[in-house]
Amino acid sequence: MSTEATNRRPGRPSGSSDTRERILASARELFARNGFQNTSIRAVAADAGVDAALVHHYYGTKQQLFAAATELPVDPMVVLGPLREAPVEQLGHILPELLLPLWDSQAGTSLIAAMRSMLTGTEVPLARTFFREVVVAELAQRVDDPPGTGVLRAEFTASQLMGLVVARYIIGLEPLASLPAEQIVTMIAPTLQRYLTGDLPDRPGR
Amino acid sequence: MSTEATNRRPGRPSGSSDTRERILASARELFARNGFQNTSIRAVAADAGVDAALVHHYYGTKQQLFAAATELPVDPMVVLGPLREAPVEQLGHILPELLLPLWDSQAGTSLIAAMRSMLTGTEVPLARTFFREVVVAELAQRVDDPPGTGVLRAEFTASQLMGLVVARYIIGLEPLASLPAEQIVTMIAPTLQRYLTGDLPDRPGR
Repeated sequence: MSTEATNRRPGRPSGSSDTRERILASARELFARNGFQNTSIRAVAADAGVDAALVHHYYGTKQQLFAAATELPVDPMVVLGPLREAPVEQLGHILPELLLPLWDSQAGTSLIAAMRSMLTGTEVPLARTFFREVVVAELAQRVDDPPGTGVLRAEFTASQLMGLVVARYIIGLEPLASLPAEQIVTMIAPTLQRYLTGDLPDRPGR
Repeated sequence: MSTEATNRRPGRPSGSSDTRERILASARELFARNGFQNTSIRAVAADAGVDAALVHHYYGTKQQLFAAATELPVDPMVVLGPLREAPVEQLGHILPELLLPLWDSQAGTSLIAAMRSMLTGTEVPLARTFFREVVVAELAQRVDDPPGTGVLRAEFTASQLMGLVVARYIIGLEPLASLPAEQIVTMIAPTLQRYLTGDLPDRPGR
């Protein structure tokens, strides 16, 4: 019903929801098919039939577009900055300290929806792309010691965090579901820190 | 199409798949509505219109019926016996040592199906019943030290195990997905053991 496709101006706010949706649909398809690194804002824009500037205008960086496309329960700006500045030996604590308040504020809505859609068939490639290329790009390189172990460290870390999402938000296991965030952080921080910087089993993968 | 309802004999194997399905459907409904403790084999049998002896014949104990009804990726007989006999200070190792081979052998089929159905809306009450009443009944009482902490300990343990299922089997994160089971066990055993018998945050919940 929209005339956006023929009559669009970057930054024009009115009647833009069709265009926004079309951009997200193109982003989802290209990220799932080609991965994060091999998908450009330009390619998403071309697929959606809009100007790349409009994609930037609506969604910001490629990472932010990815977060929007996948409905990830993570605002990259909230998490990435502090993570990059944190000492490696504090990541196990800082990571849940950043994520728990974010997740608590979204509980029952977008977080659960995102986690569920990640686990259904069609979204699994997107979830894999997210963990392989976004989490790994940010986290694994920080903890790649000895070299080659960073990805596995990041994945074990992700496994505990995902399990927490399932137990606390999706299944809603009490008393864990109602435990104050800072107590969850205290409980899982040593787990995450050991995965990130502790000893690994003999053959740590590649 | 079946004449089972009017022409059934306990233990009669032929033409029994409708009856089996009806028993499972009744079990799912009653377990979800009334919980595990408050659901009897007799009640399931009555709801399904069969004799209680037939339910026992097909499915064994109430715990086995529950496992069948929820398609849980856990055969209670494989896990419960060794768990009951294991010293508490070895549970963190024994638990994944029992579960990983079981899960690896089912990867891609019933395990993923069970985890997914647990996370979709309709099965969440069943999942909650399972964790509250079955996991708790078996595990929490073993690690209830100081008294009142067992449930939370069992739930943190479950959170790491569920996250592992998501990462290894559902999303299939490499290299974690291909890591030999014994290396997964080595990596997560200290996490589970700390949750089960280590220090807890200040207010451990009820």
